[in-house]
Parts: sequence; C-alpha cells; structure tokens
Amino acid sequence: MKVAVVGGGVIGLSIAWRLAQRGDAVTVHDAAPGSGASHVAAGMLAPVTEVQFGEELLLAMNLESARQYPSFVAQLEAATGRSTGYLPCGTLVVARDNDDLVALDRLAAFQRDLGLDVTKVRAGICREMEPGLTPSVRGGLLVAGDHQVDPRALVAALLDACRGAGVGFVHERVTELPAADVVVVAAGCWSGDIAGVELPVRPVKGQLLRLRGKAGVERNIRGLDVYIVPRPDGEVVVGATVEDKGYDTTVTAGAVHDLLRAAVELVPDVAELELVEVSVGLRPATPDNRPIIERRGDVVVATGHYRNGVLLAPLTASLVADLVR
Amino acid sequence: MKVAVVGGGVIGLSIAWRLAQRGDAVTVHDAAPGSGASHVAAGMLAPVTEVQFGEELLLAMNLESARQYPSFVAQLEAATGRSTGYLPCGTLVVARDNDDLVALDRLAAFQRDLGLDVTKVRAGICREMEPGLTPSVRGGLLVAGDHQVDPRALVAALLDACRGAGVGFVHERVTELPAADVVVVAAGCWSGDIAGVELPVRPVKGQLLRLRGKAGVERNIRGLDVYIVPRPDGEVVVGATVEDKGYDTTVTAGAVHDLLRAAVELVPDVAELELVEVSVGLRPATPDNRPIIERRGDVVVATGHYRNGVLLAPLTASLVADLVR
Repeated sequence: MKVAVVGGGVIGLSIAWRLAQRGDAVTVHDAAPGSGASHVAAGMLAPVTEVQFGEELLLAMNLESARQYPSFVAQLEAATGRSTGYLPCGTLVVARDNDDLVALDRLAAFQRDLGLDVTKVRAGICREMEPGLTPSVRGGLLVAGDHQVDPRALVAALLDACRGAGVGFVHERVTELPAADVVVVAAGCWSGDIAGVELPVRPVKGQLLRLRGKAGVERNIRGLDVYIVPRPDGEVVVGATVEDKGYDTTVTAGAVHDLLRAAVELVPDVAELELVEVSVGLRPATPDNRPIIERRGDVVVATGHYRNGVLLAPLTASLVADLVR
Repeated sequence: MKVAVVGGGVIGLSIAWRLAQRGDAVTVHDAAPGSGASHVAAGMLAPVTEVQFGEELLLAMNLESARQYPSFVAQLEAATGRSTGYLPCGTLVVARDNDDLVALDRLAAFQRDLGLDVTKVRAGICREMEPGLTPSVRGGLLVAGDHQVDPRALVAALLDACRGAGVGFVHERVTELPAADVVVVAAGCWSGDIAGVELPVRPVKGQLLRLRGKAGVERNIRGLDVYIVPRPDGEVVVGATVEDKGYDTTVTAGAVHDLLRAAVELVPDVAELELVEVSVGLRPATPDNRPIIERRGDVVVATGHYRNGVLLAPLTASLVADLVR
C-alpha cells in the first residue's frame, strides 16, 4: 500500500517507520523533519507525574505507551545503532513549601485512587536521593516509573530507521493532501492547514531552556510550576510555559525569568549552569487534551498529542498501523 | 608616519581613524574587528551616574570624553552617512526601596560635592517621566547629561570611516609587535598577550541581555544592580554582571536570571519583551580602574578602559594622537 505521511515529527516518523517495517511504501512530507515541537520537547515520559483530574482515558493511553517504550527504543537502537537517550531514571516531584505539600498530598491521593505507583518521601530522604535539591525542600513524591528520552536523539534515530526501512522524504510544506492510497496527517498544530482536513487543533506555546553542566540531580525533578530533566551527557532541560498565543514563537524575557527562578528555587546549582538555548515549541492541543487518532475515508489523522507527543509515539504508531489497512 | 594599531574595537578604530585623518599610514590588526567587548557593550555614556568614590581622575576623563561625544559622532556620521545611535536621552537612577533611597542620597551628595549636575526626583515625578517604571519606585536621581550610543552602530561607522580614510586591515591575531614606526596596542584584555608588552590588564566578564519591544521607558534607567538602555529602534539592553572569571565567556543561568529579575523589578513590562540575545564581553580592567594610555618607546598603549571603553573612545583617540608623533 502507498502511504503518505504528512509531518515528520516524532509522531509522523514513528508511524512511517512502523508502516515501512511491515512493507508499506511510505513517503514523509515535511519541509524540515524533526524541526517542530519534537525539537523543543524535553522528553519527560511521565504519565503518572502529569496525570490530571478528568483525564483518565489519556492516562490509560500514556501508561500503555510508556509500557511500550523500552521495546520501542530497543528496536530503534538495534535498527540504527543510535542511542535515543532513553533513561529509566524515575521522577521526584518536590514541594518547596507547605502549600506545595498540600497540593502534593492531593496529587498522591488521586494517583493512588487510580492505582498508580507513587511513594511519599520525607524531605531528608529527598535530599539524600537528590543532593542537588534545595535544603528548604519540604517533601516529595517518588514516581519510580516516570522516565525520560532525548527527543532530538530520538528524532535522529527515527530518521535513520525510516531511511533504512526505505521511507522516502519530500522536503516541502504540504497544504493539499498528497496522492496516495492512504494519507496520514501527523502535522502537529499545523494539521488543520491541509485543505479538506478539519481539525480542532490549536497551537499552545511552550518555552524551554537547555542548560549544560552539573545540576546535582539524576532523576527528573518536578515542581508544581517547573520541571528539570537532567541527562547523563550534561544537558539539563528546564520547562515549560503553557501559553495560548497562537503561532507566536517569540522567546520572552518573562518566561525565561520565571523558568530560571522556579528551577533555581528547586535546585540552586542550576544558577551555575551554562544557558545554551531557549527554544519555543507549539504543542498541538485539542479541546479535551487527548490526541485525535482516527480514520476518515482515505485519511488517517494522528495529531493533537499536546504535551504527550514524545510519550505517545509508540502507541500512536501501533494504533495508526491498525487504521492503515 | 607608519602606524600599526593592534586591536579593532571601539578604542583601536577611533585611534586609527584619527591618525589616518591627519595623514598617518595606518593599519589595524585584528582577527575580527569589533567582535570583542565593543560588540557586547550597552553604550551608556554615564560619567556622572557611574562615578565611584576615589575615582575622581577617571571621572575627569569620562566627563571630558562625554563632552567630546557630540562632535565625535557628528564628524563620524558626516564622514560615513551612518548613524551611531547617539542619543542625548539622560539617565534616571531609581530606588526600589528605602535602602536604595539611602544609597541614592549618598550618591547624590557625593555627585554634588564633585559639582556634578544631578536632580533628586520624587517617586510620582519619576513615574510621570517614565511611565514604564514600577509603581513601587521610591524616588530617583535625574542625571540629565548621561546619554547613550549604540556600540554596534558605532563600530560599523568607525569601520566605514577608517576604510574611507585609507586605513588598512590585517585580519589576524597579533602575538608579536608588527613592523611600524609606532605600534598602538589597543587590544583590550588581550593587550598583555603581545610579546614584549607587559600590562597589568585582566579580563572582567560581563553578561548582557538584548531584548526587543516596548519597555515603556525612554531614558537610561539605572538601578543599584542593573541598568536598562532603551533604544529608539526597539532594542533594550539590560546589563551587566561584573565577574572575575578569567577568559571564561559562558552564559550562565544565574546571571540571566538575576539580570531579568532586577530589570523586571524596575520596569515590569520588560517581562513582555522578546529576549533576543545574551552576550558576554571581557572588559579590560586595571588595578586602579583607569585606562593605561602611555608611550613606551615605539609603542603606545591604549587599553584598560574597563567599563568605559565606549565612553572614552573620543578622548583616547585624541590622547593617543598626541602620543604618536
């Protein structure tokens, strides 16, 4: 079967690779594959940490995709010889003050109601686990199953894997559906720009910092308004704003300030790190924060992954592969 | 006379232009003219605002150079048709709290003892003058004679003027004195790297931010730990750290955070501005914070301008022209 995939981010590439593996003739259409939200994402794989009230269906998808991650990256690394930076590091959610602690207790109760694996950790233990945390930390939640991947390494590996599996690339921006037996629309927040494809997807701006050096933490560190993702190679990602600003990709002084302040409050040595990059991504958001993965005639839609695109890539590829038959 | 100028920053270029104008055969040696501290400097021309106890001789030099600035840039703009961004905007030093106010009173008394022109301004008047200031401003000092220039525009104009006056350029890093009747060493913090030139000059790191947008202020705004230089073209420079870190030019998270916090405290709308650039300059500092401008045989030294290189360019060019005869 001839399949055109519109969009070469983590989602589109994962789909293209999966389809090519089973023998479909796949072409990815993207002016600059991997340059959108995938290039900016921090790569937290955090279904439990980030669970929200009223989003249990999304939680189920996130958990299932997280479960698939080790075999997904193992296949990818075997196919390409490239690391994806997948790291089963766990995540520590921390409270800076008593208000945070109350919020954390509420989150933990909700997580446990859902049968999720979280462990309350006293302040002293938090700092034994992560000596880089501020001495004023009040307590935390250990989410042992929330990990990380390096989205830029993941994209590079997916591009290699796609090429190795015979996927073709057309480096152009798509505004009309390409000719194919099936077209997969995986163009993130731009998916609605394609003529004839109506989608309730809007861009939600996220500003992230990339720092470099020793922050003194090994797990993902999550505060109530910031996360810190430390990688073994010395990159430390701090994110992220959530802004309804349309397609604006301006780096703003206020966002950089707020992210740095929040990160330094949790991990003081962040102040000593090199600030390497500030980047802006546009998450494809939907009204219910769940992705849209569905078949419409000869079109399969796979977008709206909002804050979970990297996490949901393996599951989305499986679901789309079932829809493209 | 054949003169080699080592260093193509604001100081070296001003000297080269002056010497070429009077008929010397001048060559500037610099791997990348204008790429050092001149490229990073904010361009505050603030002899009065920045006066320090015990630095009256430096004050005299700064005042004299500030006095020469209008004719210096007028000649330069006439010679090149380029703007230098010189703007007689004045500077408002502001206090955020009572501690600041006490410090400001002390500064004003010192400035008046020196016969300098400063005016105390009540909080309400500060905000009438500069509506972008925080509502919590406690008062200020208006320094009507402290202005600004755009150092990057200034360098571009000086490069044009030098070329127009017949100055030659050798794009290489100098480690030995070039052959010439007189060699002018104006290589900033690298001046001591030239064989046979002993100078007590060390680099002092400064990190600065370049923002863009409407901050709501028109004068230079000076707090006790930050300055904000708004330009008519929408650039807003926020500076600067003062760090003894050798030749390190790393942008650090902590410095960016501290500069943004201090700037937003004074002018809240800074948070809304685009963060365009973070840059690091190495100021050439001396033990007494005064520049070294002196003749040593066939060598004339003109370096150590520390935080006043842009301001002191006109005076330095005149002084060096007198030394090169």
